[in-house]
Amino acid sequence: MTSRVFSRVGIVGAGQLGRMLGQAAIPLGVRCLFLDRSADVPGAHVAPVLVGDLEDAKLLKQLASQCDVLTFDWENISAAALAPLEKLTAIRPSRAALEASQDRLLEKALFSRLKIPVAAHAAVDDRSDLIAAIERVGLPGVLKTRRFGYDGKGQFVVRKSADIDAALAHVGAGKLIYEKFLSFSSEVSIIGARGATGECAFYPLSRNHHAGGILRYGLAPHRDRTLERQARLYMRRVMRDLRYVGVLTIEFFVMGGRLIANEMAPRVHNSGHWTIDGCVTSQFENHLRAICGMPLGSTLALGHTAMINFLGTMPDRERLLAIDGLAFHDYGKTARPGRKLGHCTIVKSRVKDRNRALENALNLIHWT
Amino acid sequence: MTSRVFSRVGIVGAGQLGRMLGQAAIPLGVRCLFLDRSADVPGAHVAPVLVGDLEDAKLLKQLASQCDVLTFDWENISAAALAPLEKLTAIRPSRAALEASQDRLLEKALFSRLKIPVAAHAAVDDRSDLIAAIERVGLPGVLKTRRFGYDGKGQFVVRKSADIDAALAHVGAGKLIYEKFLSFSSEVSIIGARGATGECAFYPLSRNHHAGGILRYGLAPHRDRTLERQARLYMRRVMRDLRYVGVLTIEFFVMGGRLIANEMAPRVHNSGHWTIDGCVTSQFENHLRAICGMPLGSTLALGHTAMINFLGTMPDRERLLAIDGLAFHDYGKTARPGRKLGHCTIVKSRVKDRNRALENALNLIHWT
Repeated sequence: MTSRVFSRVGIVGAGQLGRMLGQAAIPLGVRCLFLDRSADVPGAHVAPVLVGDLEDAKLLKQLASQCDVLTFDWENISAAALAPLEKLTAIRPSRAALEASQDRLLEKALFSRLKIPVAAHAAVDDRSDLIAAIERVGLPGVLKTRRFGYDGKGQFVVRKSADIDAALAHVGAGKLIYEKFLSFSSEVSIIGARGATGECAFYPLSRNHHAGGILRYGLAPHRDRTLERQARLYMRRVMRDLRYVGVLTIEFFVMGGRLIANEMAPRVHNSGHWTIDGCVTSQFENHLRAICGMPLGSTLALGHTAMINFLGTMPDRERLLAIDGLAFHDYGKTARPGRKLGHCTIVKSRVKDRNRALENALNLIHWT
Repeated sequence: MTSRVFSRVGIVGAGQLGRMLGQAAIPLGVRCLFLDRSADVPGAHVAPVLVGDLEDAKLLKQLASQCDVLTFDWENISAAALAPLEKLTAIRPSRAALEASQDRLLEKALFSRLKIPVAAHAAVDDRSDLIAAIERVGLPGVLKTRRFGYDGKGQFVVRKSADIDAALAHVGAGKLIYEKFLSFSSEVSIIGARGATGECAFYPLSRNHHAGGILRYGLAPHRDRTLERQARLYMRRVMRDLRYVGVLTIEFFVMGGRLIANEMAPRVHNSGHWTIDGCVTSQFENHLRAICGMPLGSTLALGHTAMINFLGTMPDRERLLAIDGLAFHDYGKTARPGRKLGHCTIVKSRVKDRNRALENALNLIHWT
């Protein structure tokens, strides 16, 4: 493992995650360069953008040759596109880490190999596979695409055998996975960072509230000693196995007081946005510190926080800013139904005050 | 007073203060545009820059016509340059506020009129004025330029009558002021914000440690109920008198437990950099909130902080980042003796821990 320190970061994708990485880079003296499909992207306000397809071989080569380390706002870049860049620059997280998290089946195989509980599941390539999978795993279940699914897209809940055709029609052809539908009590995520020398830092758990497959709001720290210990243990196993460098997120279902791994993201994550205002060092800064070979920063929480997504419609900024202890985050995007346009974070020293402010904020935010 | 909300901010000067204003603007969805003498300025990493002289009438007009509100990283712009812009855009803080703080004599006259204690002083235009001033105010004293002095530049300590010619030679011709040299016990500053509707918010006091006229480090909050009450009272008087909008700084000497106003700055200030990492809302965000007509944010401190300037030489970033609870701020400037190149802030929940971390950091920082 190298202990060299980098200061030029190439970022594939310049969405809001890239933008917030770019914001964190400024005070560190780290320069970012993005690659994205358009010049009008959230990251464009904080660093220059190479415009073109995210897998364009020539542009990726240009990006790689202009940076010390390459990282990702969007993790679905193919191994084939990445492979030629490994001679040109450091890639963090590595191709292996990206590949493991791009495919739900490989991801579950990794979790299982590392003795991290997952829902019963089976690979589905066609109709007869699905029938066999339902036989083995049981009903209800969820049919999902193995790749490119996010925010609940590419998923269908199969409640009875008669749903099979509708499910296949909805999810589409290609490599699929059928998973047992879990009646979980809550969803939590852990975010951690691992440095180039193997140093690890873990944030407190966030309890995530979804609707329609999209994160609506999260509360952190979600204090549960047993769950937190378990989550850190699991994340440490994944990080060590992948020789991971950077920030990693694992989402879990909580069932009967135990964690069932749902999925992981080899990057900064929506459920960690609270760390910008709510922790000593944000997930964005720690990702940069990790991939650049700097020491990791403190993951200590500054209070009790709530992070609320702005979906589809921007709320009234001035009315939200009037809430004491609220920080506003505009991603500079055009409004569109279901689109993540921004978020706000409330930080309070008492849970009661956090909850009251959260209620006030939720009254001003309309998800469309 | 208007209650309109602005989102396009023009900033005269794109130094580190402009850069940090620009950083705070990003999550608020506020767009900044700078005017500065070079394209290679700290602000250029966070927003576009119009390049030219800071008092260039044509460029100022262009800046004003492209923004909703004009503000300042550099407050010494002449009233003559500003006057024609008042028809084109809101100017916050106002021309009157800038004028009052540009000239040490006017500034002291304002303080005195508002019954805010200042050191005994006299205007000096020539040698005979200086002799008369020394007669009246006494020795030792400090001969200063009335305009354009900062970081101890344009000052000379007159200890005996024989120093008169050396003092005049050092400070140069032009409008001067002779002030009584005060044997103060410490220096503190207060930073506050006043919104467009008259709403005020005050940060805790910072205790500032200077050497050679330049701020080396500051400790905040400097808890002293009496001084804090006094400082807020004085600042409120100034703000009300000037119908101030934006962030204002007043530096005080502490003598016998009382505050003597030294000078004010109609802008965000070096002694308030600790608020980025150490308060719920930074001075930069509150300046933007104030001038844009948004509600002010909480000025609550998150712990005990130390802010240390990087002067002349950038310290070893990685060694500093290894200090727990330390945030690093690189201004992206070329090193030059005495130049402010960046700063770091330490935030701890206990004074003892803050002091220990400060000591560790000071061992890694060399002022040149």
